[in-house]
Amino acid sequence: MSLNNSPLTIALLSGGLDSATAVGIAIESGHQVIGLSFDYGQRHKRELEAAKAIANHFKLKEHHIINVNLSAWGGSSLTDLKQSVHSKGVIEGIIPNTYVPGRNTVFIAIGLSLAEAKQANHLVLGINAMDYSGYPDCRPDYLEEFQKLANLASKAGREGKGIKLWAPLIQFSKLQIVQEAIRLQIPINLTWSCYNGNQKACGICDSCRIRDEAIHKAGYADYLKTRS
Amino acid sequence: MSLNNSPLTIALLSGGLDSATAVGIAIESGHQVIGLSFDYGQRHKRELEAAKAIANHFKLKEHHIINVNLSAWGGSSLTDLKQSVHSKGVIEGIIPNTYVPGRNTVFIAIGLSLAEAKQANHLVLGINAMDYSGYPDCRPDYLEEFQKLANLASKAGREGKGIKLWAPLIQFSKLQIVQEAIRLQIPINLTWSCYNGNQKACGICDSCRIRDEAIHKAGYADYLKTRS
Repeated sequence: MSLNNSPLTIALLSGGLDSATAVGIAIESGHQVIGLSFDYGQRHKRELEAAKAIANHFKLKEHHIINVNLSAWGGSSLTDLKQSVHSKGVIEGIIPNTYVPGRNTVFIAIGLSLAEAKQANHLVLGINAMDYSGYPDCRPDYLEEFQKLANLASKAGREGKGIKLWAPLIQFSKLQIVQEAIRLQIPINLTWSCYNGNQKACGICDSCRIRDEAIHKAGYADYLKTRS
Repeated sequence: MSLNNSPLTIALLSGGLDSATAVGIAIESGHQVIGLSFDYGQRHKRELEAAKAIANHFKLKEHHIINVNLSAWGGSSLTDLKQSVHSKGVIEGIIPNTYVPGRNTVFIAIGLSLAEAKQANHLVLGINAMDYSGYPDCRPDYLEEFQKLANLASKAGREGKGIKLWAPLIQFSKLQIVQEAIRLQIPINLTWSCYNGNQKACGICDSCRIRDEAIHKAGYADYLKTRS
């Protein structure tokens, strides 16, 4: 709990549009926010620069960047540079090779550790289940189960005062997320969603494609021209 | 799944007696084992040397040591060197200050990531609920809930072919663990349980006290004389 009585929230901050929008929602709701980002051996380490820029933009209370090297065992085109990123998943209805085994479970677990240590009330997540590339760990039933686990994992949780997992965008389409980001004046140009690790977004990977389409639909194609 | 048809298991290997015994049980059951240990900023980093020695002893297929710096936010006497280790918890029935917020949740989550990447069938844990220092994340209901989460977290899990959390010692007293370790010829002297980070075990912290008492009761006090 923070000193000035506004609730304290940990935000998983990837550097992407969704988590930046989730932070904007938490701040609009009057929360103080501590950001948490991960250097997990991702090919698009560029996103950490975006995470820092967003943390600065929001003047977050703290921003932690934690190393957890999931590339030690690969298993994904995002953590194994020998694989190339492809978008077969969304097109064919299978889980694409950008899926990183256990990534959300690891990130949420570390977020819960930080939240418990800081006595935060919430862990806010940009996860959404609609345009989610078919990942199994972005679905509502997964998050509901994680909430039950979080309630048992700590003393406060067992006393009914545990950390609440908060995924305000879980039922949003990407279009709705873009619209919400615009309403909240999120600096979309500071965010980074591309899976490829180049200096400019590729515009081709699932993440670019879904994002760009939504920005177009929302009538903000100008953002695309100026993107980094 | 391993090539020679014996099941493949990931073992969380702390360097302590319990996880070494759990590995012994997995090997006796015919499993191939990959070890996973964590450098999480613990004061007793000495335990990682023990983990390596045990991995060598068992000739494990692989042994990964992953950095995940939970000491960045402290919250425990094990990760915050400004706090001293005390054993008030067990004596007074409260959670002691050696409890590390979210530690088991983080470790199991990372173990699930490795297991999924390696297509392992099991994740074996030395967790036990009897002489467990009062930690909330060492209890059977916590593990049962984590199993449900693991089942939803991966594609294989959703198809009923997910990773099984295996805690063979969950209902063992420390005395029973020592007896099992002796039966399995676990090299108890290679293991390290002390919470303090010195070259020799302190004999005073909860972990030493519970272990030493069990070794005494099992009639193997000679081990105590030769411990490192």
